[in-house]
Order: sequence, then C-alpha cells, then structure tokens
Amino acid sequence: MKMKQIITSFFVLFTAINVFGQATDPLDYVDPMIGTARMGHTYPGATAPFGMVQLSPDTDTIPYAVNGKYTGDVYKYCAGYQYEDKTIVGFSHTHFSGTGHSDLGDFLIMPTVGSLQLNPGTSDKPETGYRSRFSHDTEDAEAGYYKVQLDDHDIQAELTATTRVGVHRYTFPETDEAHLILDMMYGIYNYDEKTTWSFIRMENDTLITGYKSTNGWARTRTMYFAMSLSKPVKSYGFKSFEKHPYKGFWGRFDQENNFPEAANEKIRVHFDFDMKEGEQLIVKMALSPVSTEGALKNLQAEAAGLSFDAIKRLTQNAWRKELNKVEVKTIDEPEMTNFYTAMYHAFLGPTIYQDVDGKYKGIDQNIHQADGFTNYTSFSLWDTYRALHPLFNVLQPARNQQMIQSMMAHYDQSVHKMLPIWSHHANENWCMIGYHSVPVIADAVMKGNADFDIEKAFAACVQTANTRYFDGIGDYIDMGYVPEDKSRASVSKTLEYAYDDWCIAQMAKKLGKKELYDEFMKRSESYKQVYDSKTGFMRPKLSNGEWVEEFDPLDTHWKGFIEGNAWNYSLYVPHDPASMIDMMGGKKQFTGHLDSLFTMELPDKYFEHTEDISRDGIIGNYVHGNEPSHHVVYLFDWTDEPWRAQNKIRMILKAMYKPASNGLGGNDDFGQMSAWYLFSSLGFYPVAPGSVDYALGSPAVEEATIHLENGKDFKVVAKNQSDKNVYVSKVLLNGKEVKSNFLSHDDLMAGGELVFYMSSKPKKK
Amino acid sequence: MKMKQIITSFFVLFTAINVFGQATDPLDYVDPMIGTARMGHTYPGATAPFGMVQLSPDTDTIPYAVNGKYTGDVYKYCAGYQYEDKTIVGFSHTHFSGTGHSDLGDFLIMPTVGSLQLNPGTSDKPETGYRSRFSHDTEDAEAGYYKVQLDDHDIQAELTATTRVGVHRYTFPETDEAHLILDMMYGIYNYDEKTTWSFIRMENDTLITGYKSTNGWARTRTMYFAMSLSKPVKSYGFKSFEKHPYKGFWGRFDQENNFPEAANEKIRVHFDFDMKEGEQLIVKMALSPVSTEGALKNLQAEAAGLSFDAIKRLTQNAWRKELNKVEVKTIDEPEMTNFYTAMYHAFLGPTIYQDVDGKYKGIDQNIHQADGFTNYTSFSLWDTYRALHPLFNVLQPARNQQMIQSMMAHYDQSVHKMLPIWSHHANENWCMIGYHSVPVIADAVMKGNADFDIEKAFAACVQTANTRYFDGIGDYIDMGYVPEDKSRASVSKTLEYAYDDWCIAQMAKKLGKKELYDEFMKRSESYKQVYDSKTGFMRPKLSNGEWVEEFDPLDTHWKGFIEGNAWNYSLYVPHDPASMIDMMGGKKQFTGHLDSLFTMELPDKYFEHTEDISRDGIIGNYVHGNEPSHHVVYLFDWTDEPWRAQNKIRMILKAMYKPASNGLGGNDDFGQMSAWYLFSSLGFYPVAPGSVDYALGSPAVEEATIHLENGKDFKVVAKNQSDKNVYVSKVLLNGKEVKSNFLSHDDLMAGGELVFYMSSKPKKK
Repeated sequence: MKMKQIITSFFVLFTAINVFGQATDPLDYVDPMIGTARMGHTYPGATAPFGMVQLSPDTDTIPYAVNGKYTGDVYKYCAGYQYEDKTIVGFSHTHFSGTGHSDLGDFLIMPTVGSLQLNPGTSDKPETGYRSRFSHDTEDAEAGYYKVQLDDHDIQAELTATTRVGVHRYTFPETDEAHLILDMMYGIYNYDEKTTWSFIRMENDTLITGYKSTNGWARTRTMYFAMSLSKPVKSYGFKSFEKHPYKGFWGRFDQENNFPEAANEKIRVHFDFDMKEGEQLIVKMALSPVSTEGALKNLQAEAAGLSFDAIKRLTQNAWRKELNKVEVKTIDEPEMTNFYTAMYHAFLGPTIYQDVDGKYKGIDQNIHQADGFTNYTSFSLWDTYRALHPLFNVLQPARNQQMIQSMMAHYDQSVHKMLPIWSHHANENWCMIGYHSVPVIADAVMKGNADFDIEKAFAACVQTANTRYFDGIGDYIDMGYVPEDKSRASVSKTLEYAYDDWCIAQMAKKLGKKELYDEFMKRSESYKQVYDSKTGFMRPKLSNGEWVEEFDPLDTHWKGFIEGNAWNYSLYVPHDPASMIDMMGGKKQFTGHLDSLFTMELPDKYFEHTEDISRDGIIGNYVHGNEPSHHVVYLFDWTDEPWRAQNKIRMILKAMYKPASNGLGGNDDFGQMSAWYLFSSLGFYPVAPGSVDYALGSPAVEEATIHLENGKDFKVVAKNQSDKNVYVSKVLLNGKEVKSNFLSHDDLMAGGELVFYMSSKPKKK
Repeated sequence: MKMKQIITSFFVLFTAINVFGQATDPLDYVDPMIGTARMGHTYPGATAPFGMVQLSPDTDTIPYAVNGKYTGDVYKYCAGYQYEDKTIVGFSHTHFSGTGHSDLGDFLIMPTVGSLQLNPGTSDKPETGYRSRFSHDTEDAEAGYYKVQLDDHDIQAELTATTRVGVHRYTFPETDEAHLILDMMYGIYNYDEKTTWSFIRMENDTLITGYKSTNGWARTRTMYFAMSLSKPVKSYGFKSFEKHPYKGFWGRFDQENNFPEAANEKIRVHFDFDMKEGEQLIVKMALSPVSTEGALKNLQAEAAGLSFDAIKRLTQNAWRKELNKVEVKTIDEPEMTNFYTAMYHAFLGPTIYQDVDGKYKGIDQNIHQADGFTNYTSFSLWDTYRALHPLFNVLQPARNQQMIQSMMAHYDQSVHKMLPIWSHHANENWCMIGYHSVPVIADAVMKGNADFDIEKAFAACVQTANTRYFDGIGDYIDMGYVPEDKSRASVSKTLEYAYDDWCIAQMAKKLGKKELYDEFMKRSESYKQVYDSKTGFMRPKLSNGEWVEEFDPLDTHWKGFIEGNAWNYSLYVPHDPASMIDMMGGKKQFTGHLDSLFTMELPDKYFEHTEDISRDGIIGNYVHGNEPSHHVVYLFDWTDEPWRAQNKIRMILKAMYKPASNGLGGNDDFGQMSAWYLFSSLGFYPVAPGSVDYALGSPAVEEATIHLENGKDFKVVAKNQSDKNVYVSKVLLNGKEVKSNFLSHDDLMAGGELVFYMSSKPKKK
C-alpha cells in the first residue's frame, strides 16, 4: 500500500512537471518494437527499469545443435523474439536486451484452449502444439506493457512487470478446456536441452513454486520462482520426459495428475480451468536467484494485492521517472521516438539480481547479503564500458556505483580474483576480450562518482590485469604484446589491454601510486608493438617477433582480430589519439586515412566475416553495428578538421537508428548502441572512459535538459538546428565560447547550458 | 583447542569408569566388518555416532541399468562395499547402513601413483584404471577408523571422521607421480549416471570446494564440500565428459590444467604431488547440505588444526561415550562383539543433516535454520519404528526427540503436509508402506519422552493418515480396507495402516480427544476386514468385497503383500494380539499355528520371492531377515505358553547374528535388525511401539547395566545363564516377582534391577 502511494505521487509529480514544450509523456515515444527484427536483438516485452524480470513473447524453439551440429540459428533468437515470425510459443520471464550471445528464457507460460497440448508444435504447423499464430496488428508494446492476440486460442495476452515479478493477464473465450502451460523445459539458446534439473510444487490451488537449473551460456545457473494464479485450478498435472531410468517408488500411485510435486530434467506442467466469455486469468510470477522462499518474498513485496492495471501504472511511472531525466525536443517526431527508445534500451541493464531482502547468489554459488548496495548482473562489458557506463555516470550515477560494487562482489567471490569479463547470473561466461571492468571503475573514479572503496577497487583492477593464465596476459606482460601464435585475436587483445592499462595508470596517478602508474603507463603503450609502419595498420605478430605473413587489413576476423578487421581496429588507441596519429603519419595523413574509412567500398566477401551486424550497420568500411569503432568518428577532434566528424555523426545517427523493428543496424548490446545514440544526439561522446573529457560532435536535438541526480540541470541547445545544419560553427558553455573540441565532466555536472550554433557549412580552420 | 580438551577429559573419564568386570573398552568389541558380506549391507568405513559423514571404501562401480535394463546388481552395493570383492575403487563420504535400497556415495577419493588414470577401471582388470587390489589381511576396521593397503599403488590408506568431516591419511611410496583422484561422477546406485551437475573450485593450492547435484533415490539432492590438503598440489586438472555441446568461450585458454574452476555433469579431477618414501597426505573433506560456505564452516569448526590421530581419538571417544551407555557381560566373547557391534550399528543413523551453525536444506529445497533442535535425516521408518526408535527412547531419548522434531520440520516443509515415509537428504523417496512416523511419535509421546509440541505432532499424524491420494488411503478410509484391485500390496497396507491408526488413537486418548480416539480406534480394527476365516490368513480383497481368488499364503509377495508372505503378515496386529488370537481361533489353536511357523519347511520356490534376506535369514517359514515378523516370536506372551518364545529368541539370536562379515541374515536396515538384537539380548522387546509395555523374552546377556540419560541405572541380570539355560523360570523386578509377561517403560526408566532366573527347562503352566 505504501509503495502504491509513493508511486501515485510520482505520477502526479511527473504529469505536473512535464511542461517542456508541449505536455510530453516520454512513454509516448518509447517503442519496444525497435530492434526486434534481424540484428537488433531487443525484446518487445514488459520490464521495469533495470528489472530482474523481462517478460516477453518468444517466437520459436531453437535448438543449439541439430544432430550434434551447431546451426547458428540460436544467434538470431538471442532475445527470444524475431519480428518476422508468425507464431508465439509463449511468454518467458528473462531476456537479454540486444546481446550477440544469449541465454535465459526462464519459465515459459502459454495460455491455451481446447484439448491439452503439451508440445510447443512447430512454426509451420502451430496447430500441432500449444503455440499460436499472431499478427503484429494486435500487438501493443510500451515501456512496461505488452499486448497481443493469440489467434489460435482466441486469447488476449497482456504482460506487465515489477522489478522481480512478471504479471500476465489473459482474457479467455468461454470454454471448459482452458489451460495454462508452464514449460520448464523451454530455454533460449538451447531450446529443450539446457535444463539440468527442474523442481515444482503446487503449494495450494493458486500458488506454485519451483526452480530450474540450466547449463547454458551461464554454465551453472539456477532460477527460482513463485507463481500465483487469480483463480483456483480445476485440475493440474505434468508430464516428464525422463532421462534417468530409475523411477523410485513413483509408480505406486498417480503422480502425474493432481499430485502436488514433480522434479525432473524435462517437465511440462498444465493447469486447467473453466472460463466464461471474457473472463481474465492473472498470473503473477516472481523470480529469485536465491530460493523459492526468496521468490515468495518478492511476490509478496512487489505484487501481492495489486491489480494488473495498478502494477502496469506503477511500472510505467517508474519508467517516466527514469526517462524524464532528459527532457528533449528534437527536429521531428521520429527522432523523439529514437531518443526515448534509446534511453529505454539503455536503462534495461545491467539488471537487478537480488531479492527484496538483499540476498543474491554469488559467483561462488553461495548466497550472499548485499550490504550497502543493490546487486546487479549481466555485465556485457566489452560493449558497455564504451558509452553506457559513462552515460550512467551522467544519468544514473547512483546505480553505476552499485553496479561497480556488484562487480567488486564478483571479484571478492571469484576464485580467480578477477573482476567480471562478461558475467551474468552468478557466472562468468568469459565472452570477448579485455578486462573492461577496469575502464568502468576508472571512469567512475576519475569522474568522482566513486562512493565505494576506491583502494580496493584499484587493487582489484591491478590483480585482474595480472592474471597471467587469462587469455594471453602472461605473454602480454612478458613480451609487451600478445603473440598470435600463442593466443588468437592477439592484436585486438593487445590494443584493448593497453587501453585498460592506461585506465589503471590514471587511477594510480590519482591515488598517488607512482610505481604502478609508471608500470601501467608503460603497458598502455603496447599498441605500438603491434603497429606495422610498412602497411600502416596494426598487424598480428608472432612470438618470435615477426609479423604474421598473410595479412589483408579488410579480412582479419579471427586472424589477429575479433569482431572487427584491422582497418577498424587499427584506430583503437582511445587513450592517446594524438600519439596514435603521430605514429600513423601525422594529422594530415591521418585525416585522409580516417575519411576514407567512411567512403571506401567494402566488397561483400569481407562483409561475410563481419559479426553481429547487418549490411545496414556499415558505412563504407566503417562498422557502426559493432563496437570497436564506436569512438572512431570522434577521432577527427584530434585532427585539424573536427568538422569531418560532424556530418558523419549526423549521418550515422540517421542511418543506424530508425524508429522501426529493423531500425538498429546491429545488436543493441545491452544499451551500448543506444548510449552512443544518446551521447551523440546530445553533441558529445566519451572517447576514452577513464578520461574526464568528452569529445564534441554535432548534436541532433534542438534542445535537451538533463536533470542530474545532484539536483542541477544541464541544458543542451542547438541553435539553427536542422537536418541540413549539421556543422557546428560555435559552442558556448554558460555563455563562454568553448575553444577546444572537448567538454569536461565537471562542467557537465556543475549544470549550465551548452549552446551549439549550427550551420550547413563546415567551419574549416 | 577447546573441543580437544573436552574430549581428552572424556577419554580420561571413560578409562576411569570402565571398571565393569575387567577394564573393558567397548571399542574392542565393535567390528564394522560384520554385515559387510552379502545381505547385511553395512559399510566398514569410519563415521562418528549419527555422523553426517560416513567415509568408507567402495568396491565396485555399478550402473543402475545396462543397455537401458535394470540389472539388480546395484542392490548388492547399497553400502558401496561387498566383502567378496578384490578391489577398492576409492573412498566416498556418504553411505547408508544396512538399507535395502540405496543412494549417496558422494565425492569418491582415491590416491594413486604412476601415470595418471582418470578412469576407475574394472574389477577384473584393475590395472586399467585408478582402482586398486586389496586384501582383507591389511584391513583394520574400528568404530571411527578404517585402514587398508592399496596394493596396486603401494599406499596405506587410513580413514577417520568427525560428525561432518571425513579425514583421510595416505602414506605414499617415493614417487614424483603421486595423484589424488576426486571422482565427481561416482555415485552409489547408478554409478556414473546419477550426477546432474558438478561444480568445483580450487580456492588455493590446499583448499578445494564444490558440490554435486544428483538424481538418485533422492530425486533432487545436492551435497557440498570443502576439502583441505595437508600439502600444496604440484599441479592439478580435470577432465569432463560433456553432455552439452556448447562450450561457451571455454576454448580460448586452457581450462583443463591448473585452471581453478570446473563445472559439468561429469567431472573427474586430479591433484598431483611429489612424495617421499613414507610421506603422508592428509585430506580433510567437510560436507554440507547447504553450501560450500557451510562446508568451510564445518571444516573449520570440527577439523581445522587437528591431526589425523587427534581426530581419530576424539571420534573414538565419542563412540566410547555412546557405547558405554550399556555395560554388558555376556556368556562368551563373540557375544560381546555381537552386542557392541549391534549398538554401533544402531547408532549410525538417522544421521545428522545440518551444518555446525544449524542450517540445513528442507524438503522444500529451501535453507532452514534448526531452531531448538538438531536436524536428522535418513528415516528408514518402515524398518526403524519397530525397535530402533523404541531403543532410542531408552538409550538416546534426547536424540529421539530431535529426530521427531526433524520429522516435524519435514512435515512443515512438505507440500503434502505429510510426515516422512522414508526420507533422506531433503527428499521423500516414498519407500515401503504405512505412515510409520506415527508410531515413532506415539511411542515417544506415550512414554513421556516428548519435549516437543505434542498437539502439533498429533495433528501432523492425523493429517498424514488422511492424505487420501497417498497409496490407497482414500479407499482405506472409505471401505475399511485397501482393495487389491486399486492398490497393490493391499493387505500389508491395510494391516500397517490399522496399527498406525491405533497409535493415533492412543495419543488422542492421552490428549483427551474423544472423537478422534473413536475414529482411529475404529480404523485400527481394519485388520479384521482382510482376515479370511476360511483359510485362517489375511487375504487380499477386491473393491467389490470378494477375496482375490488365487491365494497361496506362502507365495504372496506383491500379491496382496510386500516384503513378506501372507503366513508371516497374517500375524501383524501388534496393537491387539489378544483380539487377533481370538479371531484366529483362540490361544490353543494359535499357539500351534505360531509354533509351526518356525518348524515348517519353506520350499525354495517360495524363498525366491523373499526380499532382502539370505537363506540364513529364515527359520522354517519365520523370516527374521526382513521386518514384518520382528514382533512375531513375542506373540507367545499373549498365549498360555510364553516359554515357546524363549528358546526361539535364543535360537534367533544365535542363528541370525554372527560375528562375521556374513553374520547378518538380512539387511541391518539402519539398525532395526541390531535393535532387535539389543532388546532381545536384554530380555524384553517393544511389540507395539506406542504401548508402554515390553514383552519379556529370554535374555542372552549375563549382566547388563543401562546408564540412562536421566542419571539412573537399570540393570539386567540373568542368573544361571548359559547357552542351554534359555528358559526363564522366574523374573524379579527390584526383588519383586513379575507375574505378567510384561515390563513397563516407567519401571525401566525408574532404574532398578531386573533379574531373570534361567533354566534349561521351560516353565509350563
């Protein structure tokens, strides 16, 4: 009740203060369908900001392998939903947003009518199973709400969610054969082979608890649930698809029908009801990473006694609160949708991973109590260190600190004593390269958003960077670079380690640790070791010091590089662009070189080896659909021709972000792609997190007011803004002209006004 | 240190007070090898009294099924060890004692020398794996200690255990190829197919943690460990036998050698050492049902800083304390060994199932805090309600109350709201029939050993007895018997339900619940419904009220009966033998009938259908090797010729209990068989737990002093005792002649002296 009141007053507050321009509701501009087609890998379902539950429709059942062979199809279904699909299998409670690898899909629920079907059926013959055809015409996707008509069952499905509870409302036709299917076998990434154990209990005729252990991308993972039904079941039962021959004494009495517990690797459960025309069934499913006891607590704390509509209202108000942190006015309405949807996507993760009482599962698989912080998980750090966590240092400083504390807890509990690489749900999946917890921590420390144990965090960074057995680090330390014959993708690793090490050096300096500063500054220059001045590119080197012979800078994926070719990756010295430019022949030569990236033609044969992006994700050979080049366009700020960045930024914003299901040119990567959009739209970008400077670009907004958590407002204004006026002729900060190409974080956090004077002509010096 | 001091003073205490007869150490008379051959199903390894760890050698790897077909071989290996075997596979940490069904076998450890072998090999070719040949000549099995020479590896293995920690001492030859194998795949009952998930971490070079989830007889079970080594490993690694194709990013760097974590369904781990001649490696493996954190606490609390010898001494003193509760003098030395080994076996279980901090896993799979009691598990109740729990009401009253509180916790956490049937390790395995938590509770309540919430315990009994969907109870309630066409083994169930219901009635009476008393007294007469006066036997009845046509009272296993034939089971009305005798034609006819049970010849064709016992477990058609007839010989006390019991009891004691590996005629059944021995040796037996009376028999001891927990002593003296003087001519209690055939529990607990005057001639009235 108390929570209800608080949020209701929020609601009043927001409608009251929303007086920027017209009375704008940011939720009108959130379209969760954006990115749900092709490579975007976003999900359209319902979730609260940073919520532990992501309740969303899944549109097919994809096995990891067929006849023992990996097919690659699972990649397409990272978020469980593909816009082109014609059927919905059901609604599961956990989804990654925008990732290029996947997992989750816990506890799929599907309402059906007619004779009981416990098999999902196939997309081409949905009538062979419990799945249903659907049409996008009946879909309504909002922040915190999703609706669709399940045609085969004549059921309207609506979803909403609190932080820890997924809430379903199903409106049935009249039937004495209504069913709710709970498919404990279903999972994303390896459809029905991922579950290692399931356990369920019918606590009473409206309450079910249970858990599922999976071996997916998270190697060792268990999720618990408590599910309440608004109407008592008429009957229920389960079917198990047993692997183990031993049945114990289970044959002695009927344990598949109206018997209140079941456990097996493979279980599908059904709950049966009589339904009147238009009668609604509300299902509230609370999750917990800890126990069914924890799930029950979460259910009680967040959803008990609240109607579907009340929960939807509470969650949408929570979204309003988050999205109103930036009040924006764009040139036209589609840009408003891009902007607020990008904010929405940026605020989907990392996700909360603890019960209401603060208990969570650690990477040591023990239960821990979060003391003085909220525990978060799903750190897609190779992506999100670039712009998402820097964005959080502006828009979500408190949460960003808690995320870092969560990373520190991971470090404490890690047997390696390493900070996360790519971690989710009490697991390290080791995805991608580098140790990019380091720039996240460094960025917070250097920007003064670090109300945590900085000395300990610094020590954790150093220890992580010195884990010799991890991914070539030992050789990197000994030889100054990762040799390709010892560790694949050696150049990418060398470059990213060098940048991470620079971040450590910056913290060492701030903390007065001279020796470590020197050590890591030296390491940060390792990029020089892999620069081949003859070709003008970074190039893989062998442990004998010789270059790898075969070398085509456009075709180097897994030949020294990963998720990017040598052309793009060679520009990866974010911590010292000036030295890099010198190394590459000086400003003039570099300007032409960089410009050609955007104009050269990339033959199809090279594109085939480009990961995680569609053809739309590329401009020339500039790959925006994947992360290694996200800082690249801003490198013009270190040349004498920053204007060359400005039109390109606007071009990228237009080309790569469209308000459509296929509007994202590549994986959104848990908000990194969206964070790029947000910074760039506002006119500045953090080229090197760990530095306090933002490189200035070309704002796309007309006006934007950032309501900072410190109570101050920072306003961006673009005078004379239009689609043609993409060049910046002058920048004033609080009325004073900015002479450099940079804005400092301190100036931002102090509040004030940044005015860009826009023009259709570049300002050439 | 403190614990050490306490136990050291115990040691002094025991040696000081051990002045009964000669200065006897009861440990000299414990032979854990008794029952390890054939059907006894005891294990020879090391454990503390009621300990959570049972560290014992396992002598083969037995799959549940071969090519999908159950072979039955696993039955033989319920305790992991068979005396006839020539090889030891390794030493695992959990074992049932004497059961007829099995599970456990957690965390098998084996020390080896020479080239690394991660496969156990086979019994006929031990050199193909890590297992070793051994000889019984090198074995030394004591309470709390076990020793054997592993011939193939020239390693002496010694085992001891605290309550929660298994301790190994391996003495190696000189080698630079010493290995410790940790086989996470190994399990009892379904050798390498039981594990659903394993997880291990190398915390540092002498500490390993992890867990294993299994789907065995316990459907859903996880055991955690923390293992410390006395010497840092030189190197280590693991091999996994993966089921799931997806390896995540695990291929990027070597994660099988010296990489500190692993998880999979199937893992074997090796730790490598250099060893000098005679160098010892001490391994301390703590278990926890809760978490690796809990296991570490248990390790710290019970074993840290203590040498192998100190732990052995502590545990053996704990055994001395338990075994000294009865000081006994028998006719000859073999009987001393039988007596103390029976006590040893009686004190092996139920086993403690909680961490030192009181945390345990409940049947709801949540973690609970034991509040005001110690949590026990492994309740083989169909067996142990008969004599073991009644024995505990004499020798272990405090523990018995805690066991009942553990059963109540099970009830609280059970989704069925049922008391345990056969429960172990946070699971209900539903083994056997009846609801025999009820007599355990009733016996404690009626005997005044019930310092728990009696009203709640009573309500739990009633609720359990009214679970209509369980095993024919609905029909039993409605029709007054279980109809065979609805539920197999219907007569056995009807008879046992009737007895259990009588127990409920006794409690109802004591608690002044008249209506429930009447209801359950009526139910307790259900045995009359299945008595066929025409044949003179209990006989299966159909739901239409007609007898099952085909009926041979000797051949009725699974034809109306379970684990006993109609001949034996027809005598099962322990709560009202007088009425039963009337029903069966009166005392005279019954005496002849009962006598013939022991003298008739049972053709082999019938024996084939007798479960869980060897041919030695039968006298005539009297089956002592299984439980349904355990009270039968004492039924003579309700006739006019109680002397007919006396010689038979002495005959059973001699025939069924021998101080040899094959000395037990049937499964020891977690101490029930041993408890029968102990009561009968002392001269009395609890025919109907829930009654406060013991039926008098013929003592086998010369003298025995029971040191009761209430501080009083009860002494049994057999005057003129000998192997021939098996008849009782007179009994005096505290100098007063006992005229009935019964002794009351109150008289026992009041302390005093019970003197039997023995004779070679029966006292016929």
